[in-house]
Amino acid sequence: MGENLIIKHATIVTPVGRSARKGSEMADLRTIADGCVVARDGIIEYVGPTAECPVADTKGFREIDAEGRALLPGFVDSHTHLIFGGFRPDEFEWRLKGDTYMSIMERGGGIQSTVNATRATSEDELVRRAQWFLDNMSRMGVTTVEAKSGYGLDTETEEKMLNAIRRLADKEGQPVRIVSTFLGAHAVPKEYAGRTDEYVDLIINEMLPRFKSMTDCCDIFCEKNVFEIEESRRLLTAAKEMGYKLKLHADEIVQLGGAELAAELGALSADHLLHVSDAGVEAMAKAGVVATLLPLTAFTLKEPYAPARKFIDADGAVALATDLNPGSCFSGSIPLTIALACIYMKMTIEETITALTLNGAAAIGLADKVGSIEEGKAADFVMLATDNINILPYYVGMNCVRTVISGGRTVVENP
Amino acid sequence: MGENLIIKHATIVTPVGRSARKGSEMADLRTIADGCVVARDGIIEYVGPTAECPVADTKGFREIDAEGRALLPGFVDSHTHLIFGGFRPDEFEWRLKGDTYMSIMERGGGIQSTVNATRATSEDELVRRAQWFLDNMSRMGVTTVEAKSGYGLDTETEEKMLNAIRRLADKEGQPVRIVSTFLGAHAVPKEYAGRTDEYVDLIINEMLPRFKSMTDCCDIFCEKNVFEIEESRRLLTAAKEMGYKLKLHADEIVQLGGAELAAELGALSADHLLHVSDAGVEAMAKAGVVATLLPLTAFTLKEPYAPARKFIDADGAVALATDLNPGSCFSGSIPLTIALACIYMKMTIEETITALTLNGAAAIGLADKVGSIEEGKAADFVMLATDNINILPYYVGMNCVRTVISGGRTVVENP
Repeated sequence: MGENLIIKHATIVTPVGRSARKGSEMADLRTIADGCVVARDGIIEYVGPTAECPVADTKGFREIDAEGRALLPGFVDSHTHLIFGGFRPDEFEWRLKGDTYMSIMERGGGIQSTVNATRATSEDELVRRAQWFLDNMSRMGVTTVEAKSGYGLDTETEEKMLNAIRRLADKEGQPVRIVSTFLGAHAVPKEYAGRTDEYVDLIINEMLPRFKSMTDCCDIFCEKNVFEIEESRRLLTAAKEMGYKLKLHADEIVQLGGAELAAELGALSADHLLHVSDAGVEAMAKAGVVATLLPLTAFTLKEPYAPARKFIDADGAVALATDLNPGSCFSGSIPLTIALACIYMKMTIEETITALTLNGAAAIGLADKVGSIEEGKAADFVMLATDNINILPYYVGMNCVRTVISGGRTVVENP
Repeated sequence: MGENLIIKHATIVTPVGRSARKGSEMADLRTIADGCVVARDGIIEYVGPTAECPVADTKGFREIDAEGRALLPGFVDSHTHLIFGGFRPDEFEWRLKGDTYMSIMERGGGIQSTVNATRATSEDELVRRAQWFLDNMSRMGVTTVEAKSGYGLDTETEEKMLNAIRRLADKEGQPVRIVSTFLGAHAVPKEYAGRTDEYVDLIINEMLPRFKSMTDCCDIFCEKNVFEIEESRRLLTAAKEMGYKLKLHADEIVQLGGAELAAELGALSADHLLHVSDAGVEAMAKAGVVATLLPLTAFTLKEPYAPARKFIDADGAVALATDLNPGSCFSGSIPLTIALACIYMKMTIEETITALTLNGAAAIGLADKVGSIEEGKAADFVMLATDNINILPYYVGMNCVRTVISGGRTVVENP
């Protein structure tokens, strides 16, 4: 149950809408200089000037004086692999010495090693580990997190992961909203080596029907030598027919056409996109598929950043997320994500804010509930240390978030 | 007054020595698997196996069970511009749009705008602002900070800055040790435009004698169109004759020969060095001048990183620092510094630890007091969240520090 809250004297800065903002709309934020927000039971019921605050009798409301500080929607981290067993610091060393992600995978490392560890980790322990990450994320202003399964690669462990996510989501006092995505097609498990089609059959015939009541979204690692385009189309088409919303890991390592497939199937989002084709950019923009870009992964792998400006210039919608995972990107740093977007991907801070809020919400099908400061949406806010949103890219890699509010409840007060 | 402390069951990882570690020595860390540290009055008096801890009666000692976690020397941030008035987020926007640091300076922005703000800010306010940064730095494991003057550019304001640094250093409960550096030659103030020699005279004749009792180190921004080589040589030679230790901002924007000058004059360090010549690398290594590299600045300015491997391969000593300042690098992120060093400058994590501890201490003349876990040095420690130092580069851009101890006193417990 959310709380009753009034915030006064805030510099409100927010995108507006109940769907992804596209192209030049991404930079178009609503600003209210001496702004006020009223929330009841955790839902916003007034946004406007403090002078016109409709609540005369504030009894029953908690009051916050923002003293002019910038108030943004809570950040949405729309792509994480939050649940996993083990850690892979040794592979990180290999990569620093020059090994590629694919070569490590071929050596039996990569996802499979986390799969082994995740299978061996209890659901309770998965929940405990993930909570540590969630608390870290919350301190950086994240109020909504997408968490994928995909380190089980068998029905039992995928279910364990989805259960862990559900338990985290339902946990009393949880500082973030959590939504799950089924990513059984994260890799071909060693038991099915050379029999990708049979593993896809297992997912279609056993996992997808079984998990439909547990999650709304189905994702796939569409990549050369993992799940190729035809295999991806077959799996996602089946998922779509069962009512799943679709997401794709697309064109991360080679240009395979995942972006085009996402457009063809009307996915919520295609993610990574470091090597997306121009045709893929156009197709996604036309089809309204959110391009979820994950600059921390590119930074960690020393890969070129995804072409954010191409998407925006093609009137597409860009979201930014962390890709937190134990292999290619063991980071959940929102400050570094912002720095990379503004300095290295040439996104403006306004576009970056939209990408981290409303467009992230759209990428997980929640744009009607979170991602902007508007009446009817959840009272999820980030209050910065100053009145100026430029602090976000300017204080490079540092956390500028002072207060985090989730469902009207203050969940973080940073020193 | 430091405290009496015993830490048991730590994975102690530390460089060893009372001077900078050079070349291949940088990767040579001492590791004690089940290690113990005993400190009395804030000074280490035993480092060795827990089983051989010499203290039988622990009365009067605070005890910490590290439970196997890695214990490193506290980090030394040996190059910061901690004290300043105002902020410059607008210039940051200009830079993102393509303006260069030098072009912004020529437009009357850059250092001069901070000079104006610093002149207009009271000493009390400078102290208050700096404390906020120091607290942030402390949470990332920094236990020793160098702070430069240099935003006054007149005798009165330079003195105000040095006073502010001294007050911070002397402040009861301060979580970090603070040393100051006089950087009157940070820029030519507008009052002396076109009369650089006269400003150098002012520094030599008025400021250097006056500040000798307040600080040990003298630094200069040796750069084309700021203080050229001859001007730098004249100022630094005078400072050296008065007993100052020398530091240089060298070869940051163009290859001017600052590294060679640092070697010629026997400076403690030359800093930045993005465009250092091969001859400068050799000369510094031969002369034992520490190369203080500041990757956050290169990252923020999108410049090439300084050639860390060249220095190490030439048997030179490398230190890493943040360069925290309101213009070219508004960041004090130790986690991002580590990520940049390991991923982008090809330093190993062992070299990176030495660069952030003992070599940083050497760069500010404190290698006999801090920077390693050895008998007779200060009990300044960082305890990581795990036993494995590889967590530092692996958890990219995230703070892996759990506990920070300064002079035997726990000053930070991160959640």
